[in-house]
Amino acid sequence: MKSSCWPLGFSATGLSAGLSKKKNKKDMALFFSHLPAQGAALFTSNLAKAAPILLTEKKLTQHRGHVRAVVVNSGSANAATGVPGLNDAETSAAWVAKGLKVSPDDVWVASTGVIGTRINMAKYEHGVRGLIKNLGSSETNEGHLAAEAIMTTDTVPKIAEITFKLGGVPVHMWGCAKGSGMIHPVLRGPHGQLHATMLVFILTDASATTPVMQRALESVADRTFNCVSIDGDTSTNDFVSILANGAAGAPEITVPRGRHYNEFKAALMQICDQLTRKIALDGEGASKLVEVHVEGARSEKSARQMASVIASSPLVKTACHGADPNWGRVLAAMGRSGVHFDPTRIRIWLGDIPVCHAGVELPFSEAEAIRYLKNKEILIRVNLGLGHKKSRYLTCDFTGQYVGINAGYRT
Amino acid sequence: MKSSCWPLGFSATGLSAGLSKKKNKKDMALFFSHLPAQGAALFTSNLAKAAPILLTEKKLTQHRGHVRAVVVNSGSANAATGVPGLNDAETSAAWVAKGLKVSPDDVWVASTGVIGTRINMAKYEHGVRGLIKNLGSSETNEGHLAAEAIMTTDTVPKIAEITFKLGGVPVHMWGCAKGSGMIHPVLRGPHGQLHATMLVFILTDASATTPVMQRALESVADRTFNCVSIDGDTSTNDFVSILANGAAGAPEITVPRGRHYNEFKAALMQICDQLTRKIALDGEGASKLVEVHVEGARSEKSARQMASVIASSPLVKTACHGADPNWGRVLAAMGRSGVHFDPTRIRIWLGDIPVCHAGVELPFSEAEAIRYLKNKEILIRVNLGLGHKKSRYLTCDFTGQYVGINAGYRT
Repeated sequence: MKSSCWPLGFSATGLSAGLSKKKNKKDMALFFSHLPAQGAALFTSNLAKAAPILLTEKKLTQHRGHVRAVVVNSGSANAATGVPGLNDAETSAAWVAKGLKVSPDDVWVASTGVIGTRINMAKYEHGVRGLIKNLGSSETNEGHLAAEAIMTTDTVPKIAEITFKLGGVPVHMWGCAKGSGMIHPVLRGPHGQLHATMLVFILTDASATTPVMQRALESVADRTFNCVSIDGDTSTNDFVSILANGAAGAPEITVPRGRHYNEFKAALMQICDQLTRKIALDGEGASKLVEVHVEGARSEKSARQMASVIASSPLVKTACHGADPNWGRVLAAMGRSGVHFDPTRIRIWLGDIPVCHAGVELPFSEAEAIRYLKNKEILIRVNLGLGHKKSRYLTCDFTGQYVGINAGYRT
Repeated sequence: MKSSCWPLGFSATGLSAGLSKKKNKKDMALFFSHLPAQGAALFTSNLAKAAPILLTEKKLTQHRGHVRAVVVNSGSANAATGVPGLNDAETSAAWVAKGLKVSPDDVWVASTGVIGTRINMAKYEHGVRGLIKNLGSSETNEGHLAAEAIMTTDTVPKIAEITFKLGGVPVHMWGCAKGSGMIHPVLRGPHGQLHATMLVFILTDASATTPVMQRALESVADRTFNCVSIDGDTSTNDFVSILANGAAGAPEITVPRGRHYNEFKAALMQICDQLTRKIALDGEGASKLVEVHVEGARSEKSARQMASVIASSPLVKTACHGADPNWGRVLAAMGRSGVHFDPTRIRIWLGDIPVCHAGVELPFSEAEAIRYLKNKEILIRVNLGLGHKKSRYLTCDFTGQYVGINAGYRT
């Protein structure tokens, strides 16, 4: 399962340190750039931010985006752990820095798992030693092990990768994500405002400055990670990061415009879009991916707001599960979305099947609609007839398994 | 099951007109005041309002609250039915008016059921004849049949009643409600702004003007019906009404202050609070009632906002179902609520068991907490440590049955 798009100058690995309740489940990952790298990141906007989020956000702003490594654990979120939790996060970074012989300032930390419990730091320290030993001294492409280690209720590791050209030079971009429940990201940059525990780690051997990558990441995340909802719950630990080390030898991107920037951003969009779809499809208990398109809106913001409410509606999501063409639930969600529209102008489709025109039901084949809704990927499309702006949101169906997973997650 | 608090001068009944898919399920109800009565009402704030909502809202504002009868059907919501649906609602009122020999202006209409399908008006007309025949010419206390007829996915009829004194004169108040799914009411008056399909019909033989009752109803609903969520979905058909006919001979209440008003409002609060608890306990698939208290807030509004987000969180609701003392999910919901707080000042209790102090976990007995969470009614209490305002929200646990009910509701 080794990657053919693995970026030059990076190593990654994962192992089981015994932090997860599940025996032998990999629960620690390490990403490392052998060269100095620039990083950009987005953080949860949840007010109860986990310790590693607080620490890494500080590092990003204080050290101009210089970064060499990201260490991640699953099993404990290190959230609601107060000052001791912050100290644990600092200690994590220090151990990794020492082992890799880099500055602790250049080590970012992320965590996912149960909120409110401390990390077992003895096991963590042992894990750090193992990770560094795994890496060895040369480039170690074990990204697939890292992708496994960050999983919690995820059923599959999520990886996306691409090779593209920047100024004629082939560059590589590789990303992995975890996220299955508590997914309704509202990510923001260290200063801005954008929207799980969703964790995303992207590595590239392109060369770009932190401000440029920050801009690209915020823009892309706003149309990908910030447009996916599994259960409407925004995590305390959401974290998306990208590291670029320039090892490919392509021209450095220093301004957020122009051909090189656009090529970079397009590649990033492809990676983030793929990871977002994989997150939606692997939503806790999900049996299918549901894509919601809102078109004909006055603004992209209002379109997204409405798409978000439709995609978060338990009634819409259970209807998708039951393959019930109950489009009235879509209309009810639209009506409570806070977005103004004229009910007599709206149109609704299930896939290509028109079910509502000018606000009233169209005659449609129930059997055909049910057959469509039994697909693994389904589209709900609405047009407000007000303008030309649009947006989309990804989610999954709502199943009895979701309840089963979450009624028994911790105890 | 006849009521001992049945208000003088009112009749009510219910029957099966064949509108519901379930065979012999009662699906039409009629409430009738033998004397002229004053009414007040609240309507859903969903933008896609059902035809009966639009019609009744117009009647309330145009006819100064004069009302004699309310006719209700389940089986079809008469929502997203366009002009034909509005005509159906008008026809409904006309049939009832003719049968009862009152003005069509004085007949209110409400519906609940599937969105987007027309009512079978031939069956409806037959139903109206049956209802009027049932009422006969004298007072007919068959409120329990009406309470049954308005049920959809409800498992039990919901009735609350009280006898109290107004100026020394005994008066009666009786109410019934339906509501089990698509419950997150955002009710408002015909002009104002407050917050399922939740339907509530309250009858009293007290005497009060429409403006006074409107004020009392909005104030009480804001702390009862607008503080309950089953699934976060706000219906197109929510409707709460009160009719007062003065038959008890108590002094008329003409201003929204003073002892009589306060006595009236206290009685109304008791009825609405009881009905709200019954709705939460009978939430689709629910096995328990969950009460969320947010205290120590800067404003009641912010406390309610946070309580609403905690009570709507699928992760909190599934943890309640699984009796999992996973208070971190409460904290995560607080953090995404949009209400500002200091995570290091918060306290959280499960019932009387403190589980979090100053933002970090307190040592508590897991076994004791699990035992508590297995109760039929549970309380989650948080204190923000910022002020002295508070609010509460009612909900239920989230179960596999909820998904089962809603994945197969229509087809």
